[in-house]
Amino acid sequence: MNYRIITSILGRILVIEAFLLLAPLVTALIYGESPMPFVWTVLLTLAAGGLMLLTGRRASGGIQRREGFVSVALSWIVISLFGALPFVFSGAIPNYISALFEIISGFTTTGASILPEVESLPKGVLFWRSLSHWIGGMGVLVFMMAVLPTDDEHSMHLLRAEVPGPVKGKLLPRMRSTARVLYNIYIVLTVVQVIFLLAGRMPLFDALTTAFGTAGTGGFAVRNASIGAYGSPYLEMVTAVFMVLFGINFNLYYVVILKRSIRGFKSQELWCYLAVIALATLTIGLNILPMCAGFLDALRLSFFQVSSIITTTGFGTTNFDLWPSYSRITLVLLMLLGACAGSTGGGTKVSRFVIILRAIWGELRRQLFPRSVSRVSLDGERLDDATIRNTMVFYLLYTLIILGASLLLSLEGLDLETTVTSVIACLSNIGPGLSLVGPMGNFGVWSGGSKLLLSLCMLLGRLEIFPVLLLFTPAAWAGKRRQRK
Amino acid sequence: MNYRIITSILGRILVIEAFLLLAPLVTALIYGESPMPFVWTVLLTLAAGGLMLLTGRRASGGIQRREGFVSVALSWIVISLFGALPFVFSGAIPNYISALFEIISGFTTTGASILPEVESLPKGVLFWRSLSHWIGGMGVLVFMMAVLPTDDEHSMHLLRAEVPGPVKGKLLPRMRSTARVLYNIYIVLTVVQVIFLLAGRMPLFDALTTAFGTAGTGGFAVRNASIGAYGSPYLEMVTAVFMVLFGINFNLYYVVILKRSIRGFKSQELWCYLAVIALATLTIGLNILPMCAGFLDALRLSFFQVSSIITTTGFGTTNFDLWPSYSRITLVLLMLLGACAGSTGGGTKVSRFVIILRAIWGELRRQLFPRSVSRVSLDGERLDDATIRNTMVFYLLYTLIILGASLLLSLEGLDLETTVTSVIACLSNIGPGLSLVGPMGNFGVWSGGSKLLLSLCMLLGRLEIFPVLLLFTPAAWAGKRRQRK
Repeated sequence: MNYRIITSILGRILVIEAFLLLAPLVTALIYGESPMPFVWTVLLTLAAGGLMLLTGRRASGGIQRREGFVSVALSWIVISLFGALPFVFSGAIPNYISALFEIISGFTTTGASILPEVESLPKGVLFWRSLSHWIGGMGVLVFMMAVLPTDDEHSMHLLRAEVPGPVKGKLLPRMRSTARVLYNIYIVLTVVQVIFLLAGRMPLFDALTTAFGTAGTGGFAVRNASIGAYGSPYLEMVTAVFMVLFGINFNLYYVVILKRSIRGFKSQELWCYLAVIALATLTIGLNILPMCAGFLDALRLSFFQVSSIITTTGFGTTNFDLWPSYSRITLVLLMLLGACAGSTGGGTKVSRFVIILRAIWGELRRQLFPRSVSRVSLDGERLDDATIRNTMVFYLLYTLIILGASLLLSLEGLDLETTVTSVIACLSNIGPGLSLVGPMGNFGVWSGGSKLLLSLCMLLGRLEIFPVLLLFTPAAWAGKRRQRK
Repeated sequence: MNYRIITSILGRILVIEAFLLLAPLVTALIYGESPMPFVWTVLLTLAAGGLMLLTGRRASGGIQRREGFVSVALSWIVISLFGALPFVFSGAIPNYISALFEIISGFTTTGASILPEVESLPKGVLFWRSLSHWIGGMGVLVFMMAVLPTDDEHSMHLLRAEVPGPVKGKLLPRMRSTARVLYNIYIVLTVVQVIFLLAGRMPLFDALTTAFGTAGTGGFAVRNASIGAYGSPYLEMVTAVFMVLFGINFNLYYVVILKRSIRGFKSQELWCYLAVIALATLTIGLNILPMCAGFLDALRLSFFQVSSIITTTGFGTTNFDLWPSYSRITLVLLMLLGACAGSTGGGTKVSRFVIILRAIWGELRRQLFPRSVSRVSLDGERLDDATIRNTMVFYLLYTLIILGASLLLSLEGLDLETTVTSVIACLSNIGPGLSLVGPMGNFGVWSGGSKLLLSLCMLLGRLEIFPVLLLFTPAAWAGKRRQRK
């Protein structure tokens, strides 16, 4: 393990964070608020980052796979440790553990909040809170690759660990170009959404923060009643549609828009994702019909919530915790499923689910005909055994984390629904769960220790388990000798 | 697919069932009740079985793997269809669907009941209800192999499909000897338990039925308050210890008692199973301490419930639905874990869990060092990739069935805890769940359709998914041509 290379990467990440913190600083100045919470944070972050850059060393001949994993996991922890400071310095969240929970929830695009209300917070703090979604959505290391010169060998392992999905491919031969293309699509889509929101007479500040929350599939809102506060079906539908768009694999946008190829539309994951949205919207709509003003009203509420949950955003227009059992359990299943690989959404990803279903089918055939050869393929390409095994292990770990974390949280004695859905909402980077952590509740019900555990779940979810879990594996830290065994 | 061989196997199974039905018939006569419900059932079962034996044909050159699967799954369905009749004929459960649920719950050793109270039922019906646990525990086809002459090639696939566990070995070169050894151990252990129960002044009828429920890890009791009704700590502890004993792999008894080898004690599954029981007993004991008369009292309640749930029996001495969150969630986790492979217990089995943990660890190492070779072994023997893959697929299917069945049940609009734990309690063959189906509730809250779905879950759990699932696979029924592809 080359610690100096990791230190150098962390240093660069912190310098970038200090630069990004200028945005809320300017916001605070515009709204006549004290910029000091941000000034102090920028100075501290710069100092720490500078010190790390001095002691660290740029990678010369590329980095190992495990160094990539460790760098990514530590980067996310380090930016959160500093990113929490403005909440504390401004007095918005005086408790550091709570502030850390809030910013990890931001960066991981979870959107779970410990705040019972947000409208009284300074605009600068709200801007930083929403911006953290936008930064975390596409990934902070991908951003680093896009803006700083890096060598390719170096970046591949970082991109692999930060971009979600079971199969990872480069869009372009050079990693830096790939990172830039991804961020360009991301920026353009965000700007288009802002324009649509402004067209619906949403104030500029709200439009920007809402677009950040949508683009990162985060879910922090600047109104207590979330998107429901605007009372505008137009704004709800714009947000719902953009949530769906940000839940689609960004590679498809590249292929369809930039390469002008219809190959992107042939993605099995895309159609499966859209079919699930349609089916869930329709059945939930029928299920909540008796509670609504009519079928169109039911469909509107249902579509917004389905799109908010499957994309793991977590915006709300209504309290779905009051919906009947079928709707509530469907939403929990959508939380587990999540959006498409290579999007900003969380969960276990639709493509993994497709792979798992095919692997199960293959195993059933093998049970019947032991000598038959089963091939699992996605979009016409055969998947190798390693990918299938990795996908299965991912699902099993996901389940074990939900069960294990629920067991630990249950020591606090809250009801099972709150306990289990808190873990699912954090691990899948959704935001709201059910019962006490439902759309009208908040995560302030948990103690400091539980908040840290849930923060860990959010990081595990955003980085797809392995990089974070490997941090706790002694083998990841062992010297080179062990590695050669 | 050779339908005539399957018909012949089903015919023999029905004739055996008719023979077994003589036991409750005699019980009814002893207690001066009308034997007619059993007389009619015996006649109908014999007629159907005889007809099938006439149209079917004995296997001459062995049967295929898939014919073995289909035979086992259909056998369990057929014996349930006829086994439900005494409930209907006696008027104990007039509704046939409910009666079917009750007898499937019996044969699969689930012990989930739709009856709000049982003490008013005729003794003959109660005896049949408890005997069904004992028959289903070791397996009805294993019984057939033990008592009827069969050829080996033929039996292997049947034993494989009916005896639970990830790795299946023959104890003895001949299948029939293996089946006999298993049943002999089973009978001896049951008799020893009856003697212990009688020593604690339990009435003979109660001792026999309780032993049937314990041996099969079923859980049907003949008292409304289950084992708690006797108010005897001695009887509770005898039952708890025997539940633990029946949750151990029967191969170990064979190796230790009959072969006088200490190799049996080296089973990793055994120690893992005992360690989980000890840990769960201790932590639940501490968790419920404030509700109990003292630490020993808490440990007694805790040990009984842990042993009842991990072995998937479902007997009760107290209403654990009133316990705090930690205890309740621990019990749900024990439901999912289940007992040892090759025992009469259900759940996913401890050895599968050990295999899964090792496979995950292997995958984590591979993530760090892609070129490293990971071996997964159990009790010193290396497991092949097919076993590991099959174990993973089993877990994934288990999870999908829980989620899918919960979604369907949620259409009835009961609370999520009732809905999800109903599925888990049935799939893992436990009996009681939480909330409305907790120890003081019953499965009568569900509609006929839901009862059938839960019955399917019980069969899926008892036969470890694949045989039942393959019934619904067109490929299993396809002709030989398809098989050769």
